[in-house]
Amino acid sequence: MLELSKNGKRYSLKSSTAMPKASGFLWNKNMMIQVTCRGYAIAQFMQPEPSKYTYQPMVEGKIFMLPEQPFFSHSPGRFFYIKDEETGELFSVPYEPCRVDAQDFEFSVGKGDLRWTVKHLGLEIRLELSIPTADVVELWLLEVVNTSGRARKISVYPYIPFGFMSWMNQSAQYRQDLGGVVGSCVTPYQKLEDYYKNKDLKDKTFFLHDRTPDAWEACRDTFEGEGGIHRPTGTQQEMLNCGDALYETPAGVLQYRLQLDAGQQEKFRFLLGPAFDDAEIMATRDKYFADEEFAGSRKAYAEYVESFRGVISIDTPDKHFDNFVNEWLPRQVFYHGDVNRLSTDPQTRNYLQDSMGMSYISPEVTKKAFLWALAQQEESGAMPDGILLREDAELKYINQIPHTDHCVWLPVCLRAYLNETNDFEFLQTEVKDWKGDRVLTVFERISAAMRWLQMDRDERGLNYIAQGDWNDPMNMVGYKGKGVSGWLSVATSYGLQLWADVCEQVGDLVSASQFRQGAEEINQAVNEHIWDGDWYGRGITDDGVLFGSAKDAEGRIFLNPQSWALMAGTPSAEQAQKLLNAVDEQLNTPYGVMMLAPAYTAMRDDVGRVTQKHPGAAENGSIYNHAAAFYAWGLYCVGDAERAYDVVRKMIAGPDEGDLLQRGHIPVSIPNYYRGAYHQFPRTAGRSSQLFNTGTVSWVYRSIIEGLFGLQGCSNGLLVKPNLPAHWPTAHVLRDFRGASFDVKYTRTGEVTALQITVDNKRLAGSVIQSIERGKVYKVVVRLPL
Amino acid sequence: MLELSKNGKRYSLKSSTAMPKASGFLWNKNMMIQVTCRGYAIAQFMQPEPSKYTYQPMVEGKIFMLPEQPFFSHSPGRFFYIKDEETGELFSVPYEPCRVDAQDFEFSVGKGDLRWTVKHLGLEIRLELSIPTADVVELWLLEVVNTSGRARKISVYPYIPFGFMSWMNQSAQYRQDLGGVVGSCVTPYQKLEDYYKNKDLKDKTFFLHDRTPDAWEACRDTFEGEGGIHRPTGTQQEMLNCGDALYETPAGVLQYRLQLDAGQQEKFRFLLGPAFDDAEIMATRDKYFADEEFAGSRKAYAEYVESFRGVISIDTPDKHFDNFVNEWLPRQVFYHGDVNRLSTDPQTRNYLQDSMGMSYISPEVTKKAFLWALAQQEESGAMPDGILLREDAELKYINQIPHTDHCVWLPVCLRAYLNETNDFEFLQTEVKDWKGDRVLTVFERISAAMRWLQMDRDERGLNYIAQGDWNDPMNMVGYKGKGVSGWLSVATSYGLQLWADVCEQVGDLVSASQFRQGAEEINQAVNEHIWDGDWYGRGITDDGVLFGSAKDAEGRIFLNPQSWALMAGTPSAEQAQKLLNAVDEQLNTPYGVMMLAPAYTAMRDDVGRVTQKHPGAAENGSIYNHAAAFYAWGLYCVGDAERAYDVVRKMIAGPDEGDLLQRGHIPVSIPNYYRGAYHQFPRTAGRSSQLFNTGTVSWVYRSIIEGLFGLQGCSNGLLVKPNLPAHWPTAHVLRDFRGASFDVKYTRTGEVTALQITVDNKRLAGSVIQSIERGKVYKVVVRLPL
Repeated sequence: MLELSKNGKRYSLKSSTAMPKASGFLWNKNMMIQVTCRGYAIAQFMQPEPSKYTYQPMVEGKIFMLPEQPFFSHSPGRFFYIKDEETGELFSVPYEPCRVDAQDFEFSVGKGDLRWTVKHLGLEIRLELSIPTADVVELWLLEVVNTSGRARKISVYPYIPFGFMSWMNQSAQYRQDLGGVVGSCVTPYQKLEDYYKNKDLKDKTFFLHDRTPDAWEACRDTFEGEGGIHRPTGTQQEMLNCGDALYETPAGVLQYRLQLDAGQQEKFRFLLGPAFDDAEIMATRDKYFADEEFAGSRKAYAEYVESFRGVISIDTPDKHFDNFVNEWLPRQVFYHGDVNRLSTDPQTRNYLQDSMGMSYISPEVTKKAFLWALAQQEESGAMPDGILLREDAELKYINQIPHTDHCVWLPVCLRAYLNETNDFEFLQTEVKDWKGDRVLTVFERISAAMRWLQMDRDERGLNYIAQGDWNDPMNMVGYKGKGVSGWLSVATSYGLQLWADVCEQVGDLVSASQFRQGAEEINQAVNEHIWDGDWYGRGITDDGVLFGSAKDAEGRIFLNPQSWALMAGTPSAEQAQKLLNAVDEQLNTPYGVMMLAPAYTAMRDDVGRVTQKHPGAAENGSIYNHAAAFYAWGLYCVGDAERAYDVVRKMIAGPDEGDLLQRGHIPVSIPNYYRGAYHQFPRTAGRSSQLFNTGTVSWVYRSIIEGLFGLQGCSNGLLVKPNLPAHWPTAHVLRDFRGASFDVKYTRTGEVTALQITVDNKRLAGSVIQSIERGKVYKVVVRLPL
Repeated sequence: MLELSKNGKRYSLKSSTAMPKASGFLWNKNMMIQVTCRGYAIAQFMQPEPSKYTYQPMVEGKIFMLPEQPFFSHSPGRFFYIKDEETGELFSVPYEPCRVDAQDFEFSVGKGDLRWTVKHLGLEIRLELSIPTADVVELWLLEVVNTSGRARKISVYPYIPFGFMSWMNQSAQYRQDLGGVVGSCVTPYQKLEDYYKNKDLKDKTFFLHDRTPDAWEACRDTFEGEGGIHRPTGTQQEMLNCGDALYETPAGVLQYRLQLDAGQQEKFRFLLGPAFDDAEIMATRDKYFADEEFAGSRKAYAEYVESFRGVISIDTPDKHFDNFVNEWLPRQVFYHGDVNRLSTDPQTRNYLQDSMGMSYISPEVTKKAFLWALAQQEESGAMPDGILLREDAELKYINQIPHTDHCVWLPVCLRAYLNETNDFEFLQTEVKDWKGDRVLTVFERISAAMRWLQMDRDERGLNYIAQGDWNDPMNMVGYKGKGVSGWLSVATSYGLQLWADVCEQVGDLVSASQFRQGAEEINQAVNEHIWDGDWYGRGITDDGVLFGSAKDAEGRIFLNPQSWALMAGTPSAEQAQKLLNAVDEQLNTPYGVMMLAPAYTAMRDDVGRVTQKHPGAAENGSIYNHAAAFYAWGLYCVGDAERAYDVVRKMIAGPDEGDLLQRGHIPVSIPNYYRGAYHQFPRTAGRSSQLFNTGTVSWVYRSIIEGLFGLQGCSNGLLVKPNLPAHWPTAHVLRDFRGASFDVKYTRTGEVTALQITVDNKRLAGSVIQSIERGKVYKVVVRLPL
């Protein structure tokens, strides 16, 4: 039995059996943690590269987060065993590792904390995790209430398996002086130079308590013994052994023996995190245990949470949609803009798109990010494959692979910032090369980037793809230097048009005309070489083969070229209808729109890595939400309100939250994908990747603001051009914009035959609300024909 | 209750409770597998880099084998669940993952197979693993006998968790056509060039049966369900679901529902291994299932096993010692020489020492290895840090770190080959640079190496250490180019003396004299700068600090400089006595001799990585058997029979096999270390690393042959110069030597006051048996004074 309920800003999942893998996540400037309702946790922090403080069994790849992360019995978790000392019964909270079905189980995901309430054997166990706004430390609250109506004797054992910390040196001890178990290791290295890289790493893991335990253990094997993780030998003894781990697998285990009167309640606080040395552990302890029930930290985090508010608050017939857009979507947008997915070298396209989302939350961040990125522009005008966030960072693996699309994100993402802020002065800001003396304005740099993009085309006028474009794993289409990208070509066209608009707005009419003409040429070239009869192909390989084409048995149609062609105005009306039909027929599913279909089931070595990914997962035929978001944006660009809403709604949830939960997801985020290959592998289709790192969210937010509700900034005010789905009779939106507030009521009515807008009861001529005054509240009524 | 018994060439471990982690191992040219008595397995094969076919939960570091490998619930294993269909009772064979204490449990380690017999619930389960001589495939035999005296209904579920194969693409299906479960993955990569590196990898794992099962499952999560690995949900159903794994964690599970009459016996065979494609799987199936009960393969493997015989067979008062030396030691020596620890770039010192051991088993291999290594000598005469075994191999991580000791192993290891074979012609063999045209003889090359070593010294005449010598992790002593190694200096002296002997033997008296004088100079320099009053220091840092010295609180004394000074004749008699006493007092323990003491407990940044390793484990204060073996050899060089025997005996076993088993070891190999830091961390001291990759064994074998029994080849015959411990009244050795057999009887008797040798009843003048005739059996009697 699975049940999801919502209470204010919280979701609650109730379960008696069949535990799902749903999870919530938290982050701050320096860390993030994802915890499943079962108790498994993936935590990461920066120093400056991504690091762990609870470890997987073996050496982990820490570079990127995994979709559909598999768990194992000894995957890192936060486990709390409860033992009835009179009967010997044992269970664990949240659920792992004992997996005992509790009488009541509740997992509650807030914006600033995760909570569990488990009722079992006449006890109520409340567990809560929060984190502070900056320090890397987990703040755990545990409450145990005797609800049985009689006196009880129990033992409570918090158990944090530290995992296999290092093959070089690992140990753990209970530290009376620090008040908890401290694991230590040396990050393995062999080369001398790696010593200098590693020597300042936080190689300690601490698990501290605010109440002295009756016993403890620091060695996993001693604690678990033959009983195993699901019934540790340590819990079968009267007292833990109080031992240490000496090059044995470290763990933090405490034992509290409690005698509880009927109704008695006991509270415990714990701190878990990494540290460099004892002094740091001591400082953390003093700081957080001085804070009663972590109240100060929780308040500060709540304030931080409030800073994630977006620019719209909506009230529509779709309450689930409202809740997600009002509460959770801006939070996920902020997450991306705030921490850049915990990387020191985000891919340029991700960095710019994540920053685009901040236009709606904290435009100063968008501005800074553009300046930071543009300072790393190459002399040719090209943008590098990744943006280094620190002087000592370096472009790693994926960013050493030449991709050709990075420039296109500059005008595309900047447009959202300009729409929102009208900050054209920004274009005149001077940017100095971060490792050189060349100084150019933002406008000059982006113009150079667009010229580079225009130049980086073949004799047909199509953009080269090199070892990949937006779709990373498409790495064998053009590695010989000839292959071209259909998608990038239309994206370039779209970018050139957007930039031509900006050139016009700043009065550079010559450039505007050049760019516009360039876009026109590309559209023609694409229609000549890439149009496949009923949709656009994905590209042409080094050997001149059009792929993503009707003649292909797999990878017959790709979503991205269709989406961006719509943005770029490439297709004629007839072509547009054909491609929309093709997407409906071949890519749309009850769970969303697939990125390509049919998914590749075998290697195709003129396409590359995408064909090696598992069909229906990751990019190979999944419902890759980032691509779906572009499709929604493209649909809004051409005013296709119904299709666009269908795409966005499916991305946010299935038919309802319950359906989404069945697919492994709590609707507090959009995952990077849902499993696709809907016709090929129906058993797994729709399943959530549970990975919340995705370029999707800034585009969804923009699509909802500018597309769905049509509340888009322009140089002279707020353009009102809604695309509400026909089945919504009304909608109500509060929109913050350029210092003013817009209270917008939409009504679909037979009284009008065309869009009719009144502002403060006055009929608006045209569709732009002009001369906006800061601080003013505008009452806007939008009447739509039936 | 733990009980170890020996039956012919087998050891058997019986256990009712408290299962140890004892393990056995097997290898062939292309694979190795270590399996614990619990059922955990570590298997590795080459393609050409070390690869896995059952995977740890996360991405593994595959470069080297880990000592004290930690296991987790989901560590790869070979599990066989048995369920009583009438009572629902479940247990697993061997022991994991159910961990049910069987009525009888037996784990039996042979030279060519591993067997378990488990009696439980009126059933007898026999399990046997063997491997062929070359193919990478595990051959499993399972027998189930109904010993209950009544008819039974049971289900048998072989369960092979394939683990987390790849984040990029993983799946598994039951394949009717192939007869088993096949897991497939794509080794993850992102760079195009890595595609070409990976594309021929064996990314499939097969688990095949010879009897069609009643049901199966290929998805771990479906099989284990909420029951978990210790009580899988699949086993609680009547039938498995017959499902597949689609980007889910793959596993091979079969179900056989059996109705067994009283006494009925059923047999099953299974094949497990990696493959490139279906054709390869089919070929493997056809080849091995055609072989009834794997009889042909077992026979061939047994023959292969017989080829590991060494050159001595001993019969002494110490039966455990006899058994190990006769049966297991040559096997481990052969393993090292045969497969070079499954690496494509063994460290030069390991390669030469492992090859030295082959002098006693297959001297042709030693010869080839020397030629192969010498072809990679640098123009300066220096030897590279690693020897590439394939044209397409490259020097990896550890071999990119400059070490200065590699040349020294040439004369030291070649001496054993020359002693054994008298093959001086070999020295005139021409060796061409493998990537160049320069041709030099073996003699010229080793002479050049010795000159390089002589030259690579500082103004004091001591050898530079750079970023390490034999002790890899001593990487900060001399990285600035000034620090020197006390050990390498005496090792150079020893090497020069050995090479001077060879020069004399081939008539190059000038070189002989130069090398001998060089050795003398080094000995003087060492005595002047490295002697610390009661023992030799370990070296002098870049900043001129002698370490391994009485003034050091940690790392006060190192074993290696003492051992090699004995070999090199560096100390005076008085110094020698002092250093022996110091080793007795500070390094010797009941479990063996520690490599250094006290173990470092904190970083010392003028010493380096050794100080970062965990105290008592790995090289930092452990009873590192490789170093202990050198000490034994050094002791034999000076005729210290008692101490030498003490060292060798402790290395092979503790006081008895039972003690060794308590420390985690079955005496079928010498582990690379036993935990040391005996005084600092007594709880863990003596524990076995269970890692059988170690340079120890060739030295132990040589020490026993040439030192203990004193049956050392020389240019005119067999030198008899025994060092038997005083408490042995007699000993009997059969020694194969240069085509003849020597039946040597040792007696300690009051009848002689000095060593007295008779050969075929004739008193030998001197101690060299000369003019040895091939094919002849010599009866030798050696009388030793009391």
